[in-house]
Amino acid sequence: MTTVREATFELFRRHRMTTIFGNPGSTELPMLGAFPEDFRYVLGLQEAVAVGMADGFAQASGTVTHVNLHTAPGLGNGVGAIFNARANKAPLLVTAGQQARSLITMQANLTNRDAVEVPKPFVKWSHEPPRAADVPFALAQAIHHATLPPAGPAFVSIPMDDWALELEPVDFTRQIARSVGGRARPDAAQIAELAQRLRTAERPVLVAGPDIDASGGWDTAIELVERQRLAVWASPATGGNRLGFPEDHPAFQGVLPPAVGPLGEFLAGHDLVLVAGSSIFPYYPNIPGDLLAEGTELIAITSDPDEAARAPMGDAIVADVALTLRALVDELSEHPHREAPTPREPAPAPEQTDPLSPSAVHATLATLFPQDGIVVLESPSSTPALRNQLRLSRPGSYYFSASGGLGFGLSAALGVQLAQPDRQVVCVLGEGSAQYAITAFWTASTYEIPVKFLVLRNDEYSILKWFSTLENVTGAPGLDLPRLDVAATARSYGVPSQGVCGGEELHGALADALAQPGPRLVQVDVAPGMALA
Amino acid sequence: MTTVREATFELFRRHRMTTIFGNPGSTELPMLGAFPEDFRYVLGLQEAVAVGMADGFAQASGTVTHVNLHTAPGLGNGVGAIFNARANKAPLLVTAGQQARSLITMQANLTNRDAVEVPKPFVKWSHEPPRAADVPFALAQAIHHATLPPAGPAFVSIPMDDWALELEPVDFTRQIARSVGGRARPDAAQIAELAQRLRTAERPVLVAGPDIDASGGWDTAIELVERQRLAVWASPATGGNRLGFPEDHPAFQGVLPPAVGPLGEFLAGHDLVLVAGSSIFPYYPNIPGDLLAEGTELIAITSDPDEAARAPMGDAIVADVALTLRALVDELSEHPHREAPTPREPAPAPEQTDPLSPSAVHATLATLFPQDGIVVLESPSSTPALRNQLRLSRPGSYYFSASGGLGFGLSAALGVQLAQPDRQVVCVLGEGSAQYAITAFWTASTYEIPVKFLVLRNDEYSILKWFSTLENVTGAPGLDLPRLDVAATARSYGVPSQGVCGGEELHGALADALAQPGPRLVQVDVAPGMALA
Repeated sequence: MTTVREATFELFRRHRMTTIFGNPGSTELPMLGAFPEDFRYVLGLQEAVAVGMADGFAQASGTVTHVNLHTAPGLGNGVGAIFNARANKAPLLVTAGQQARSLITMQANLTNRDAVEVPKPFVKWSHEPPRAADVPFALAQAIHHATLPPAGPAFVSIPMDDWALELEPVDFTRQIARSVGGRARPDAAQIAELAQRLRTAERPVLVAGPDIDASGGWDTAIELVERQRLAVWASPATGGNRLGFPEDHPAFQGVLPPAVGPLGEFLAGHDLVLVAGSSIFPYYPNIPGDLLAEGTELIAITSDPDEAARAPMGDAIVADVALTLRALVDELSEHPHREAPTPREPAPAPEQTDPLSPSAVHATLATLFPQDGIVVLESPSSTPALRNQLRLSRPGSYYFSASGGLGFGLSAALGVQLAQPDRQVVCVLGEGSAQYAITAFWTASTYEIPVKFLVLRNDEYSILKWFSTLENVTGAPGLDLPRLDVAATARSYGVPSQGVCGGEELHGALADALAQPGPRLVQVDVAPGMALA
Repeated sequence: MTTVREATFELFRRHRMTTIFGNPGSTELPMLGAFPEDFRYVLGLQEAVAVGMADGFAQASGTVTHVNLHTAPGLGNGVGAIFNARANKAPLLVTAGQQARSLITMQANLTNRDAVEVPKPFVKWSHEPPRAADVPFALAQAIHHATLPPAGPAFVSIPMDDWALELEPVDFTRQIARSVGGRARPDAAQIAELAQRLRTAERPVLVAGPDIDASGGWDTAIELVERQRLAVWASPATGGNRLGFPEDHPAFQGVLPPAVGPLGEFLAGHDLVLVAGSSIFPYYPNIPGDLLAEGTELIAITSDPDEAARAPMGDAIVADVALTLRALVDELSEHPHREAPTPREPAPAPEQTDPLSPSAVHATLATLFPQDGIVVLESPSSTPALRNQLRLSRPGSYYFSASGGLGFGLSAALGVQLAQPDRQVVCVLGEGSAQYAITAFWTASTYEIPVKFLVLRNDEYSILKWFSTLENVTGAPGLDLPRLDVAATARSYGVPSQGVCGGEELHGALADALAQPGPRLVQVDVAPGMALA
């Protein structure tokens, strides 16, 4: 006979889900007992960290990833990070324990009353099996929901006395053996029409979004751009959880601004805008204007029906981004006469001010950055500067919170590093951002996850002061962060850390950190304010 | 003319809501700008901390308390703490910013899509006003929902462009001026019947729950017990966010066990169990048995219709706990012949082992504890020992997470201290528990909130190892916590902290911390395992 527990681990093995992230409580112990030797459990000390790590791991490994949380309060602590994972389209199986079935109706302590409501509206599917025997089937369904496009989190609540039940083999073997795929190739007629529009456009442009990388379309996008001599913009940084195009490519023009008016102006002069793998658009802040200039048409390729439906302008093809780009390239030959766009200038060399500007910090990082390195970024006021100074140009080399939610960066960096042990992860954080998932430093230290952390400290929420200016707000409290010392806090959790000032100290400390085997942190004092280049 | 913003602050003034807890984002700036001088803003660096502080403040001040969170991800990070506040029956107004109305339908970045669903099912009421002009009215409604019995959190989502709208005075002055009260006195016939049952019972017992203190019924409960010579048990510690009865009173017998079988056995021999201000019961763990022995009857007084409906046995009166106790006392004279119960033994003097037992730590704390001190407790494996060693005996002197959720203690302690500046708050934490809200140390330091923290460190989740034994689970991962050093982490946030071993060092360090004006932390190494006495 096979128990619910055994069938579940068998299901996980079939999907290569042998790394489990979590923060355990009493209601999860029956699942975790006699933990199989071929599985790895990675402990986060708060649920936002556990979910964030799983999000990074899922994105960087390309596999559905399990995060196991405690009943109601534990799941509740994870809801913000589940929102981030939804925006990042990370395939997550989120589970939480539940009170024993016999104690639920009376709502004994720690009952997750209405458990399926707790992670809504941020999960694709939410279920509590009505019988213990249905647990493996429910988990299998959740895995399929999580992975079918658009990928995202799915949730199952599991009463703690369900795990020991013995199952009839006929009940579960077919349920857990299913393979379900949903990568759609678009209709040939749509592709032919789009190819024709591209061929005949005067000044077409590609806007490259995060799902180019997530769908495996990186090389195909380059092929399309080179064959058709397209100019390329990245979709606004606000929603870009990954890069869609090499940022040192001669066709690459930069990152679009994230507000309605300015973005419309940037694209003016193009008669056709092809958006691949991005929403239209992750606007923020609110600067009104024309969505598009007169004479500009837009067409989007997305695997997300919701993105297609809610776009405020343009047409859309709903299909897998990589497969659609492939079909498009196959339909198009080298453009006979279109001129390749003018390459942009190299990144400006920032002045060495005292304190350093964030741009100068990122310029220093750029000189040391490993060729196959990966950036995980959560430094809201220096995001544009980092993108411009580093110009990352390999697939899977950049992760960011597409939702705008904080706490992703520090925890996701650990998951990304575990998923990509042969590439160096550099996690770039503001000292304010680091606080939303600060205990992840303990996990980095305890599991010896060799992420290098670079923390920019300016004693304030710079991004909020910048927004205040845009919104004509003065005198708001809570925007200053005196005396935070992330180096000291990370050291208290066991991560060797140092604080530096000035370019030379920074260069030395970063070089040293990158040369060491374990996790290391460098905190650098920077000038306050937004860094755009 | 009055803006939505001005009307809102006027509403808050009327309800004495001049302390606002929060973690701001761009969507909250228009509310926070030109922050009024008669208001105080207390910044938490993560939302679980902001909500936890507000929870403590609301309970200890007895006033509805506002916590302001960022749109979707910020609100999401606070959901676990909102669950705790619901279980604690803390009257909270939870607000979150929302994207500008013009950008919601396209779901621009940071849109809180289906915002009213996010905090469900843990709020009493959840609303997003369909027009800017309705914001003050919606906030007024939420305040009434939060305070009407049973108190709890209520939520309003507010689009960021609503604040500047100018209102017609007739629209809002009556809306925000309303006073709404819901303390119900029970039907006289019910009281007469209950009084008669008490008079004629052979061995009646009072089970004292947290809402005795919350409703202001502390002295009345003592009067009832002394007049009727009742034995008193505290309701199980698991659900006891406050004390219901002085624990050094001669009638006080101890704290009921939190499991079905043992609790039923403890109450066997009593023919009438009167439960005041507690659910029936916050059971956990799951140890089956008879809910009550044959011949034992139970009747509960609660202001919570849900508690009354879901109890698995006994009758219930739904009314204000303090008013009902008062009515009952007024109906009863001194019992003519019932004998007062035998007082329990003094707390045992624990052995001074190396490392110290948690019981020995709490015995030391008891010798130094200020007369009017307040304990905020989140040390799951030593809760029974603390209750027994300290035997707190004044109203409003104990706060605990009734939900079982972690992260409450450290953050709530700050709120309690701000609400009760003339009483010394001592926050007792496990080193694992402290991690769920660790950044609260920064708020303690920055706002100079003079809480004294006592952290028990045993390198493990002891409560989970104890549960593992009960559940026959072995080999679960993630239960050890090597190398956590809360003293070092708190120091990194600016709280003077020291780590100690042994009784003498502990006594000296605690005495010293209590003598200092600001926040202080003492971390003591203790033996692993559960401490029951």
